[in-house]
Amino acid sequence: MTLRIGVIGTGAIGRDHARRINHVLGGATIVALSDVNRASAEAVKADVAPDAAIFDTGEALIASPDVDAVLVTSWGATHEQYVLAAIAAGKPCFCEKPLATTAEGGKRIVDAEVAHGKRLVQVGFMRRYDSGYVALKKVVDSQIGAPIMVHAAHRNPAVPEQYVTPMAIHDTMIHEIDVLRWLLDDDYVSARVLFPRASARSHAKLRDPQIVILETAKGTIIDVEIFVNCHYGYDIQCQVVGEDGIANLPDPMAIPMRLGAKQQSEILTDWKDRFIASYDIELQDFIHAAAKGTASGPSSWDGYVAAITSDACVSAQEAEGAAIAIDLPARPALYN
Amino acid sequence: MTLRIGVIGTGAIGRDHARRINHVLGGATIVALSDVNRASAEAVKADVAPDAAIFDTGEALIASPDVDAVLVTSWGATHEQYVLAAIAAGKPCFCEKPLATTAEGGKRIVDAEVAHGKRLVQVGFMRRYDSGYVALKKVVDSQIGAPIMVHAAHRNPAVPEQYVTPMAIHDTMIHEIDVLRWLLDDDYVSARVLFPRASARSHAKLRDPQIVILETAKGTIIDVEIFVNCHYGYDIQCQVVGEDGIANLPDPMAIPMRLGAKQQSEILTDWKDRFIASYDIELQDFIHAAAKGTASGPSSWDGYVAAITSDACVSAQEAEGAAIAIDLPARPALYN
Amino acid sequence: MTLRIGVIGTGAIGRDHARRINHVLGGATIVALSDVNRASAEAVKADVAPDAAIFDTGEALIASPDVDAVLVTSWGATHEQYVLAAIAAGKPCFCEKPLATTAEGGKRIVDAEVAHGKRLVQVGFMRRYDSGYVALKKVVDSQIGAPIMVHAAHRNPAVPEQYVTPMAIHDTMIHEIDVLRWLLDDDYVSARVLFPRASARSHAKLRDPQIVILETAKGTIIDVEIFVNCHYGYDIQCQVVGEDGIANLPDPMAIPMRLGAKQQSEILTDWKDRFIASYDIELQDFIHAAAKGTASGPSSWDGYVAAITSDACVSAQEAEGAAIAIDLPARPALYN
Amino acid sequence: MTLRIGVIGTGAIGRDHARRINHVLGGATIVALSDVNRASAEAVKADVAPDAAIFDTGEALIASPDVDAVLVTSWGATHEQYVLAAIAAGKPCFCEKPLATTAEGGKRIVDAEVAHGKRLVQVGFMRRYDSGYVALKKVVDSQIGAPIMVHAAHRNPAVPEQYVTPMAIHDTMIHEIDVLRWLLDDDYVSARVLFPRASARSHAKLRDPQIVILETAKGTIIDVEIFVNCHYGYDIQCQVVGEDGIANLPDPMAIPMRLGAKQQSEILTDWKDRFIASYDIELQDFIHAAAKGTASGPSSWDGYVAAITSDACVSAQEAEGAAIAIDLPARPALYN
Repeated sequence: MTLRIGVIGTGAIGRDHARRINHVLGGATIVALSDVNRASAEAVKADVAPDAAIFDTGEALIASPDVDAVLVTSWGATHEQYVLAAIAAGKPCFCEKPLATTAEGGKRIVDAEVAHGKRLVQVGFMRRYDSGYVALKKVVDSQIGAPIMVHAAHRNPAVPEQYVTPMAIHDTMIHEIDVLRWLLDDDYVSARVLFPRASARSHAKLRDPQIVILETAKGTIIDVEIFVNCHYGYDIQCQVVGEDGIANLPDPMAIPMRLGAKQQSEILTDWKDRFIASYDIELQDFIHAAAKGTASGPSSWDGYVAAITSDACVSAQEAEGAAIAIDLPARPALYN
Repeated sequence: MTLRIGVIGTGAIGRDHARRINHVLGGATIVALSDVNRASAEAVKADVAPDAAIFDTGEALIASPDVDAVLVTSWGATHEQYVLAAIAAGKPCFCEKPLATTAEGGKRIVDAEVAHGKRLVQVGFMRRYDSGYVALKKVVDSQIGAPIMVHAAHRNPAVPEQYVTPMAIHDTMIHEIDVLRWLLDDDYVSARVLFPRASARSHAKLRDPQIVILETAKGTIIDVEIFVNCHYGYDIQCQVVGEDGIANLPDPMAIPMRLGAKQQSEILTDWKDRFIASYDIELQDFIHAAAKGTASGPSSWDGYVAAITSDACVSAQEAEGAAIAIDLPARPALYN
Repeated sequence: MTLRIGVIGTGAIGRDHARRINHVLGGATIVALSDVNRASAEAVKADVAPDAAIFDTGEALIASPDVDAVLVTSWGATHEQYVLAAIAAGKPCFCEKPLATTAEGGKRIVDAEVAHGKRLVQVGFMRRYDSGYVALKKVVDSQIGAPIMVHAAHRNPAVPEQYVTPMAIHDTMIHEIDVLRWLLDDDYVSARVLFPRASARSHAKLRDPQIVILETAKGTIIDVEIFVNCHYGYDIQCQVVGEDGIANLPDPMAIPMRLGAKQQSEILTDWKDRFIASYDIELQDFIHAAAKGTASGPSSWDGYVAAITSDACVSAQEAEGAAIAIDLPARPALYN
Repeated sequence: MTLRIGVIGTGAIGRDHARRINHVLGGATIVALSDVNRASAEAVKADVAPDAAIFDTGEALIASPDVDAVLVTSWGATHEQYVLAAIAAGKPCFCEKPLATTAEGGKRIVDAEVAHGKRLVQVGFMRRYDSGYVALKKVVDSQIGAPIMVHAAHRNPAVPEQYVTPMAIHDTMIHEIDVLRWLLDDDYVSARVLFPRASARSHAKLRDPQIVILETAKGTIIDVEIFVNCHYGYDIQCQVVGEDGIANLPDPMAIPMRLGAKQQSEILTDWKDRFIASYDIELQDFIHAAAKGTASGPSSWDGYVAAITSDACVSAQEAEGAAIAIDLPARPALYN
């Protein structure tokens, strides 16, 4: 049986997921599209989803009896309403980041899903599906002893002028917030931000780089260097220091060369290339679970916790150097 | 439109390809199975291809109007007959290595395909689809100048007792024979084999390791260490020395660790893990071409040339140290 | 002309320096030895310095007209008195760490040397002579843009039971304190210490590991992981993040191996092996300068600043998480 | 007691060794210099050996009662006569490569030394003193099982126009010839040379690169790529494949950087930098042995065997592809 999927929001990421489902992955097909800009939906239909019906609203798409499951890839501010509608309809729903733009919104989704009594939502934290992080987690769980520290870095070659200091948390650090929590199987209890002198590529509204320090419930300390104008490349580093040894996230495959008096290998410069394979895998995972009427992978709860943690990190930016407590509500049994 | 595929030969590799097509890849479905051992076909139907019909013979499967394209994954000695039958039926055909067990058999297939006038056959040389080799080829074609030498190694931790000296060519070196020819876009003109003292893990009928030296039409010299009882792991190395610099095949992803007074990372020990991702990609490529009624990727010609080259390498084993000429017939225009 | 050196303190390090001067380095010879345990001095004379006279006191050795320059390798608490005596005698003096056990002691030495009007003292911060740090400094000064952050680690496999928390600063971190200041050509303005949960190999009087965060006058933030019971090896890491790129301290030479399903290379386990070559170079530098009646390399001022910084770091340990200001007196012109 | 050394031949290498002995190493001093160009000897005296007497001839220098040991760093064609004179005088003698320009000359030296009854000659094969090769030998002897193959490369960025094909053996490969024999503790029985198509940077009298294949008495096969116009850098590679695993010569220390979308580290371009530290160590070894009236390290026998092997390799160049036997005389007991 082929899972019939509707896509709400047909911008770059929605189009790409539609292509994936129709041309790369097995087990599902795109049957419905919706976008505030109908021409965008028509174009995606023409290019990658010829059999899809176009719906005027996301709500109408969700309500269609021809749609088994929903992808929410619309503008972030609209995620919450569509996810809530999908839960109300009892349909599995894959929602791109952010689950909601506020922690309260995340809570409303968690509450609705708990009330429904079964998981329906997967949040698009694709790094959990990256083969490097998956291999790292296996080693962390089995070979290096209890994790005590994590040294991480999220470096981006350049950002546009409108990128301001809090976006380093909401748009950039958000990935580390989710993936490190998953990697360590732990929760955060505090956040602290330190600012070294700003890079010459910073500007009045962007303090860059910054060091975010998270402490977990088990006492692990995580330092994450966020450097969004690092110039040299897109580079994600993660080193876990355990009681017995150390494990590192591997660098992406690159050809080792000897050329021009240098040993050299390429570093990626476009973030879109870094975790490209994991998008396929996360969606395949969604299809498998949705075919059974449920969801797996990163949950509404994970999205909600990420939102709470992000808010604390932004407060910590403002409180430069001081630790800001992160108080999580009790975890509903649905997410154990 | 979904491509309807029939699988002839439902052993380990046939089963795995059937699973891939039905559960991982898009655009095709398994509709037919055949095996000399009918129970094997029944089991694959039960496990991964519930909608497949079972045929008594490969020929009957090929003849079925419900089958659009064929996978030949039967015992090597039967490949030629099924591939010829598929060509006769005008159906795209993916054939696992070897295309035929003799060079003459390869020639018959090439002749039949040329007579047909359009490519229908893809041979299962999956390394051409490996992301490492693909990236290496890109660098070799653009960054290191004309290739002058290749230093390669094919190391396997252990082989069973029945593995004898010529199998180092037919079963092991065969992959380098194809992929290096593709990598260099060149043809071989001679082969030479040198035997160092045998490893203690060799035996009366196996001289191991050996060094196979191939020379190409352009004058590139390739040395390939074949070491099938190397003990430490399954390890494929390939270094291209160009006029301006050097490029290496990257090692598979592994977690860099610091543990027990060692910097360390795992080496694979099972050959099946090394190119696992490339099986998906080669079959997807087959599906895309077969949907258009043709084939791409490694051709009958490539399979035939590999057979001629293998025969020369075995002669070179017997002529220890002397160069054996490799004379290829003219390449039919179909394969340019 | 051969420089005539006297050694005060003939324990392990004094003996080793005497051997170096007499058997490895050029331009100097050991003519005098002194130790509170005269038998120790006699043994060193017998083994590596047959032409040396034994003196009853360090002061007598310093006063001897046959002694051109002095090595102070005695118990730390006695360093100050001997260095002051050497300055009073106008003789170049190489002093092992610490220059003095208190910042006040360091200040007395600086004042005496400034009053003398010429540098006479070199402190045994040997890392400045390590080929790795020297190469790193060259790259930091020329290729990666202004340094913005430093991520460092000082890991030791195990420490004895009597090693307590403040020793992580005075005995371990002291090396990073000096070498990073030299590497960045900068001064510290604050220190902060964070404690993750303690490793199981810690004990009641040792919180291990810890993260020391230093901020410099130019705004560079340095995080140093101090992990003295890390188990896996002796491992010194230093990564400098600049505006344009990143440079790392290289690991010590090790043989890359492929063995037992692992790519592997040895990590040192004994700190004494890590910077062994730099002891030769620092002493050769001392000999060259002392032959001209002066000193170069790490100065009294550097030793004094290291003492002030260490005191701040220990306060920061006690103030867990809070930044402790580091206020340096004005730098005398002698040290510019 | 300080060893009094005389230097015959004060060109670049003689001057550098004189500087080393007088300014870097312990235990010896330069007391005598001689050069066919007296002004050269005067200049070295002025710059690094003020206490040296200038002699009109090498023979007079050797005969001087003030000279305990001799360095022969003159023009290669004159080495044999000075080494024979030193042996006749019973004085330890360090001779730069080549020991003699013909195998017969090497034999005359071996015969003279054997007649003398004690080792007096050390040949300047400095790679045996390189820390990388020393560490590699330790691993080869203990960790990877019996060596079966060696894959080596000797790459040089560029050579002058007058460098012709046989020089690839006499001037370049000569180092591998000695060091690999020492590394494996084995002797060569045959040589074979293969020529890939010539690099565009070759010329009429230089076929470059070439692959020299040596077989040893124990059956180990060694392939050495000699590429003297490789363009990208000076790069020495050596991989030993043993029955149980593989060990590689480490690359020289370089700073790992991330810069300009590349992971990168420098490769040396000047051969003089590659083994610079080993010159100090080989001379120190000479001083220690000479102080006892003898010699250690690479012997006359090693120099003689290298000459025989070189001659066979040049014959193998001419016999392109065919194996040329290497017949060594019996090894005199003095060299066991």
